[in-house]
Amino acid sequence: MIELKSTMDQKYKKIVMKFGGTSMADIDCVYKVADHIERELSNGKLVAVVVSAMAGETDRLIGLADQVGNIELQSERDVIISSGEQVSSAILSMTLNKRNIPARSIQGWQIPLITNSMHGSARISDIKSSHLEKLMEKGIVPIIAGFQGISEENRVTTLGRGGSDTTAVAIACSIDADLCDIYTDVDGVYTSDPRIIPDAQKLKLVSFEEMLEMASQGAKVLQTRSVELAMSYNMPVRVRSTFSENDFENVKNGTNIGTIVTNEEKILEDKVVSGIAYSKSEAKVTIQKLEDKPGIAAEIFGSLANDGINVDMIVQNISADGKHTDLTFTVQETDLRAAKLVIEGLSDSIKYAKLEDSKDIAKVSIIGVGMRSHAGVAAQMFSILAEKGINIQAITTSEIKVSVLIELDHIEKAMRALHSAYELDQN
Amino acid sequence: MIELKSTMDQKYKKIVMKFGGTSMADIDCVYKVADHIERELSNGKLVAVVVSAMAGETDRLIGLADQVGNIELQSERDVIISSGEQVSSAILSMTLNKRNIPARSIQGWQIPLITNSMHGSARISDIKSSHLEKLMEKGIVPIIAGFQGISEENRVTTLGRGGSDTTAVAIACSIDADLCDIYTDVDGVYTSDPRIIPDAQKLKLVSFEEMLEMASQGAKVLQTRSVELAMSYNMPVRVRSTFSENDFENVKNGTNIGTIVTNEEKILEDKVVSGIAYSKSEAKVTIQKLEDKPGIAAEIFGSLANDGINVDMIVQNISADGKHTDLTFTVQETDLRAAKLVIEGLSDSIKYAKLEDSKDIAKVSIIGVGMRSHAGVAAQMFSILAEKGINIQAITTSEIKVSVLIELDHIEKAMRALHSAYELDQN
Repeated sequence: MIELKSTMDQKYKKIVMKFGGTSMADIDCVYKVADHIERELSNGKLVAVVVSAMAGETDRLIGLADQVGNIELQSERDVIISSGEQVSSAILSMTLNKRNIPARSIQGWQIPLITNSMHGSARISDIKSSHLEKLMEKGIVPIIAGFQGISEENRVTTLGRGGSDTTAVAIACSIDADLCDIYTDVDGVYTSDPRIIPDAQKLKLVSFEEMLEMASQGAKVLQTRSVELAMSYNMPVRVRSTFSENDFENVKNGTNIGTIVTNEEKILEDKVVSGIAYSKSEAKVTIQKLEDKPGIAAEIFGSLANDGINVDMIVQNISADGKHTDLTFTVQETDLRAAKLVIEGLSDSIKYAKLEDSKDIAKVSIIGVGMRSHAGVAAQMFSILAEKGINIQAITTSEIKVSVLIELDHIEKAMRALHSAYELDQN
Repeated sequence: MIELKSTMDQKYKKIVMKFGGTSMADIDCVYKVADHIERELSNGKLVAVVVSAMAGETDRLIGLADQVGNIELQSERDVIISSGEQVSSAILSMTLNKRNIPARSIQGWQIPLITNSMHGSARISDIKSSHLEKLMEKGIVPIIAGFQGISEENRVTTLGRGGSDTTAVAIACSIDADLCDIYTDVDGVYTSDPRIIPDAQKLKLVSFEEMLEMASQGAKVLQTRSVELAMSYNMPVRVRSTFSENDFENVKNGTNIGTIVTNEEKILEDKVVSGIAYSKSEAKVTIQKLEDKPGIAAEIFGSLANDGINVDMIVQNISADGKHTDLTFTVQETDLRAAKLVIEGLSDSIKYAKLEDSKDIAKVSIIGVGMRSHAGVAAQMFSILAEKGINIQAITTSEIKVSVLIELDHIEKAMRALHSAYELDQN
């Protein structure tokens, strides 16, 4: 892995700084946020800021909207929920102005940040950046309310949970920033979950693709859409902590700040695997002795999809008699009950002996762009698990990821063995 | 006083309905508000709605802004505080849509309602009503966030406390409504304060000018600016209760709903006095044995004005020796300390024997457009008070009002005597 040079931070002249809800939780946190902004400005950076609502505020507003109970009317929910970022952006602007740092809160409609009309999960279609750029040229820091935009119909939209990450990356792209700094409550992306693997190491660099695979595996540091967007526009994103005292020291010598998510070319990776991810929230469903006939899989998985149930892994064994098969698939635990109802509802058209399910499973994944150029990574993973006596119940693979389903009790043993075997505990 | 005909309500085809914070306090209140709107729509009315923030919400937001402590930065405070109306407008819109009544929340920037840039106390300069009118033509009820607008610089402004009344009247004028209905927690304007005068009668009609005099006297039912605006555009405003069960009954026969504030011509008034108002919040300052020389009054009251202290009544007695005088004036109790400091600060340039003050005073006023055509109203008032042995400490008069300063202990006796003498207790 390449070493970050002490001058590295200097090459980022124009930056977007994004602060999440926990970073804006109360006035003391807001002061800390202001410290970060003040430091970057005094280092001569050109800065635009994106903020989330103060922690808990979005949930409070959702609760208020839910009292009315008209959850279908997402357009009005967006008006309610977006007020959280409106307030936090003005609070931060006031704080900066009090320190004689010119700043101004900017709402989605003031940019404007244009989205489609999918209220509650709108996609950004256009950002008119001239207003922001004029402010920055005048030395006024724009404090942009994340998560919100306006539709072509001039109505307020929101981007969905975690949408402020996407706002930050989109703003960074539109003003042609050199870096999008995402300040959060963790100090970077780790080789694995430090609660399970105490030796887990912070990654200095990770590729967009690895980050996407990690996010969907439960390492929820960045909203998936924001990573996709950053990848499309090749916008480097740095994950760093608002609260870690070390950061202020590290900034001086430019080393070891957060994790930079960037394109693969910049990562001169000599490791095949860069991270171990896991998920405990899946459940397994097995249909035993399913009558095997053409179209049966399409019927089952089509019905599940129609009910909005996402299926992750699917394993179908070849039947011994050519007429029957055992079909296993996994869904999110929260969807298990609904999935079983769907299968039971198909009892007229499909024949089977027994429907079984289990929540005592876990998914463990190895992720790394290095896999592309290294053969036999999956086989090596299976043998490491076999050595520890861990049975594999299902397997899925992608270009840069291998996931296996194992018994829940084995998760820590499996992750430690893999972490160590791929030398992720070595700095 | 003219009788309201049973068909009177029918003549108002296009109306603005404004609901204050107590009317929007919680979801049950919002349901009540929706009932009122539903009733008017089913009566064939064309309706636009203006709402305040849910009761307590504006204070909560001010508290949040005050934590930062940058109270000078009113532009960002406006962004914070205006979010209260944003939320309540969307809550009401959701509630109506749930009842299959098409409605849409509208923020100041969406109208747009243009104001000057005096953040925190902005004045409305223009309302583009075409968007609202198009919605109403389509059968969609606009639910307008009161209290807020945008400046020419495209920034959020607020109109000051109680500004939603002004929004409602301004919207009514801009869409050429027939009536602006202000729903509040009282059922109208009374001849006097019912807590002091149990016989106080609800007025059916009151003139704009009387309403202005009453408002400045402490009958704070409508924001003063909203009455001034209604008077300028001759827009009738009705004060009525959101909660009074009677209203729903009264609507059927069109009688006795609230109080209509309208122009003088419509009021065929046979009573000279239409209301008795009072204020307990004033304090009296007396400068004894003040050296009387030219320019002394200008110096004293100029200095008070420079410090932002409003002086209400001024009484100066002619001095016995031609060289000294006693000067008495009243200020708001909250300004008393500052006023005394101003006078004491002038001790180099003005000479006096003693500075005295008292909070044990009250102001009682009789108000009525009928005074214009009736001589001797003030003299009659003084004799009524004299009969009750109440000493008058100071007097001010306007065309439609006479105010006297009396001892605080006498306030109830004075008000009852006047209320009865002017036959306000007779329906």
